[in-house]
Amino acid sequence: MAERVVDLQRCGYKLIQDSDSHCFGGDAVLLSSFAKVKKNESALDLGCGTGVIPILLCAKTEGKSFTGLEIQEKLAETARRNVELNGLTGRVNIITGDIKDINNIFGAGSFDVVTANPPYIRVNDGPAGVSDMRSVATREILIDLRGVISGAARVLKNGGRFYMVHRPERLVEIVNLLTEFKLEMKTLRFVQAAADKKPSAALIAATHRGKARLNVMPPLVICAGPGVYTREAEDIYNG
Amino acid sequence: MAERVVDLQRCGYKLIQDSDSHCFGGDAVLLSSFAKVKKNESALDLGCGTGVIPILLCAKTEGKSFTGLEIQEKLAETARRNVELNGLTGRVNIITGDIKDINNIFGAGSFDVVTANPPYIRVNDGPAGVSDMRSVATREILIDLRGVISGAARVLKNGGRFYMVHRPERLVEIVNLLTEFKLEMKTLRFVQAAADKKPSAALIAATHRGKARLNVMPPLVICAGPGVYTREAEDIYNG
Repeated sequence: MAERVVDLQRCGYKLIQDSDSHCFGGDAVLLSSFAKVKKNESALDLGCGTGVIPILLCAKTEGKSFTGLEIQEKLAETARRNVELNGLTGRVNIITGDIKDINNIFGAGSFDVVTANPPYIRVNDGPAGVSDMRSVATREILIDLRGVISGAARVLKNGGRFYMVHRPERLVEIVNLLTEFKLEMKTLRFVQAAADKKPSAALIAATHRGKARLNVMPPLVICAGPGVYTREAEDIYNG
Repeated sequence: MAERVVDLQRCGYKLIQDSDSHCFGGDAVLLSSFAKVKKNESALDLGCGTGVIPILLCAKTEGKSFTGLEIQEKLAETARRNVELNGLTGRVNIITGDIKDINNIFGAGSFDVVTANPPYIRVNDGPAGVSDMRSVATREILIDLRGVISGAARVLKNGGRFYMVHRPERLVEIVNLLTEFKLEMKTLRFVQAAADKKPSAALIAATHRGKARLNVMPPLVICAGPGVYTREAEDIYNG
């Protein structure tokens, strides 16, 4: 399996990536910047892949413990090596397991924060018959949106926070599922490549059993011009 | 009652406004630009106030008939005078009535398009005890979001389109109610005073019993700089 080491460009953290399977995308970096983990809080990342979100959250927050749950053993192994590579053993814990079994893996109300950068694509919307490691990460082959949101709700404390990045075109389904599982959407921020472009991603924060009050932020615009980051994107990617 | 005549700045259309009660806001103009009424279609505006939305839709589309439903008789009278003032008698019809009685006023599936610029403010969120004409238009005193959305669903044809402008912070409630009444949100566009400001309004299009697929548009930005409209806002307000 081909591998390469990628500089996370944050405090010197680095990540091993399997070149021919799952590489972390910009969305994971955006989500780890959008998510807030406060002092002494515990955070779980659902479907952590090579571990980029727990590692970045550990790097940039004062949270106490960071857990990544990953169903694909090969990715979970890579994530564990990434934790070692970055000297975070003991602070970031990678567990191999299925979100559908979350009740048997963690107790109810175990976490202050849950994050997820789940597969975006409905199985029926993608090419048929593909189920390699990368497909499992990008398409709803092993878990769908309902599974991710219901799983988050089960392990979040009352008042705990769920942060997710997903596709804007699935916002209706996201809102309906959050409501069904008592997660109140509190912040919505679209990500746009440029100020006049349609959003490519939606950053969502929801509070378990929270009060209704949505804060829609101005969009996060990535490019100020051709090849030029906005100051905000510069801070997120290179900060 | 003090009155003034306001230039709608569109094809020479004008509107009588009661200075001390309900004046049409910019949101009504934005909604009438966002809403699409096709050739020979019939459109209903729920809570039409002084008639700005049906009059503008009549002015700028090829729709066949335009109806405004307004519960406050004084406003409905002003709306009728506005229809006359603009020479639209016979094409725009103003009916005095309550959205809650919509089943007794119109048959099910009577309209291709329903528009609404409803009261934004929950009764409990505003100052207590106020119920003048302006308050009824801006606060949910006589009708709430559920009443507006359920009313729209009742009179829309299968595949008919609902266009609404509302506050971004109520988006979760809006999505949940649209889903409950089989209105599928198809387009979402936030309105921002400037590119880096939080949105002040949400423009929403939903299709009755439509397929799930949301198109989130880039935000409609009103000001390019202090006192300067963006080209798009210029087109909407003065086009």
